[in-house]
Amino acid sequence: MKKVAVILSGSGVYDGSEIYESVLTLLQLTEQGAAYQCMAPNIDQLHVINHLTGEVAEGETRNVLVEAARVARGDIIDLATANPDDYDALIIPGGFGAAKNLSDFAINGSNCHVNSGVVTFTQAIHQAGKPVGLICIAPAMSPLLFGSSVKFTLGNDKETADTAEAMGGTHINCPVNDIVVDEQLKVVTTPAYMLAGSIAEAASGIKKLVTRVLDMA
Amino acid sequence: MKKVAVILSGSGVYDGSEIYESVLTLLQLTEQGAAYQCMAPNIDQLHVINHLTGEVAEGETRNVLVEAARVARGDIIDLATANPDDYDALIIPGGFGAAKNLSDFAINGSNCHVNSGVVTFTQAIHQAGKPVGLICIAPAMSPLLFGSSVKFTLGNDKETADTAEAMGGTHINCPVNDIVVDEQLKVVTTPAYMLAGSIAEAASGIKKLVTRVLDMA
Repeated sequence: MKKVAVILSGSGVYDGSEIYESVLTLLQLTEQGAAYQCMAPNIDQLHVINHLTGEVAEGETRNVLVEAARVARGDIIDLATANPDDYDALIIPGGFGAAKNLSDFAINGSNCHVNSGVVTFTQAIHQAGKPVGLICIAPAMSPLLFGSSVKFTLGNDKETADTAEAMGGTHINCPVNDIVVDEQLKVVTTPAYMLAGSIAEAASGIKKLVTRVLDMA
Repeated sequence: MKKVAVILSGSGVYDGSEIYESVLTLLQLTEQGAAYQCMAPNIDQLHVINHLTGEVAEGETRNVLVEAARVARGDIIDLATANPDDYDALIIPGGFGAAKNLSDFAINGSNCHVNSGVVTFTQAIHQAGKPVGLICIAPAMSPLLFGSSVKFTLGNDKETADTAEAMGGTHINCPVNDIVVDEQLKVVTTPAYMLAGSIAEAASGIKKLVTRVLDMA
């Protein structure tokens, strides 16, 4: 049975992992016969967003690993303790957590950095020839993770695509129900909630992404 | 298009709505052609559980509606403002939030009470002849919501079943991939994470529940 690492970034679209994308990833992995292990960096979130009002919850702090544990029903490990050798592939769901906690793309755009633990783990997977899937805004980290030849998608928003491309790589427009595959680098990306108008739309692209990642693993 | 109310109880299995059950419900509603509106009571959670350690986060408070907004991507309304006439059916996912926030079944067992807003809304749906689906531990509220003739399932744990039956109604053992249907009262229940060993197992019963609720609506 193939085992897939899933890096989460919290729990909630505006300050953590997009919950639907995360759950649909786990559902597809299970339905397609793979095992998975959720993991997250043990760091504070950039901030906490009240998801009812959309505003920053001033004075409140939450930990990425602790909140991501909600999405994982408690079955989660600290990314710093995860051994890349234990996994056949890696998937990173989206949500602003990928651009606020795993990286600072939401704040610093093309001058962003990726969390060092995410870089180390992802590059170890990648350099071992194993596939990596990135969903929604997470593919914005692709140039910093896989180098300037990488092909990836963030949907079809030109400004977001240009900002990511300024770091390297080639953005390819892609509809919500499809994936972009960099065959050489084994990087698979899908827009999900960069474009999705419903959970079923997000599910269609994520299903394809999981299938392709498992095929390559 | 049928429109279904979904009452959430927070975001996270140990102190709120079980995230997978909630997301799978919304996925199935969408894939089966129905619209939905998430809603939750605007009250404080019983407590906050650190989902990494399983322990109570002392001194921390969170609001059920605000946290449930994470599962709804912000598209949620205060249960107190919801009009039952706007909906064709109601579904309540599980998670300890159903037994800690929507009711106090987790604390008081067969002496529990159901939140008055949940009672008012659910009974209005029920008395209008519309179906109600309850998932996981949420069916424990059935006797207090639908009266002592109701048939429901909480899986196959005798102690839990006995505690709920002490309030009235008849518990029927049910496997994770199936549902119990009270045809007369239009109440549909499934065990989900009372029994599920994987997200795919939970999905199988929830899919049947959504199908049956929509058939009856």
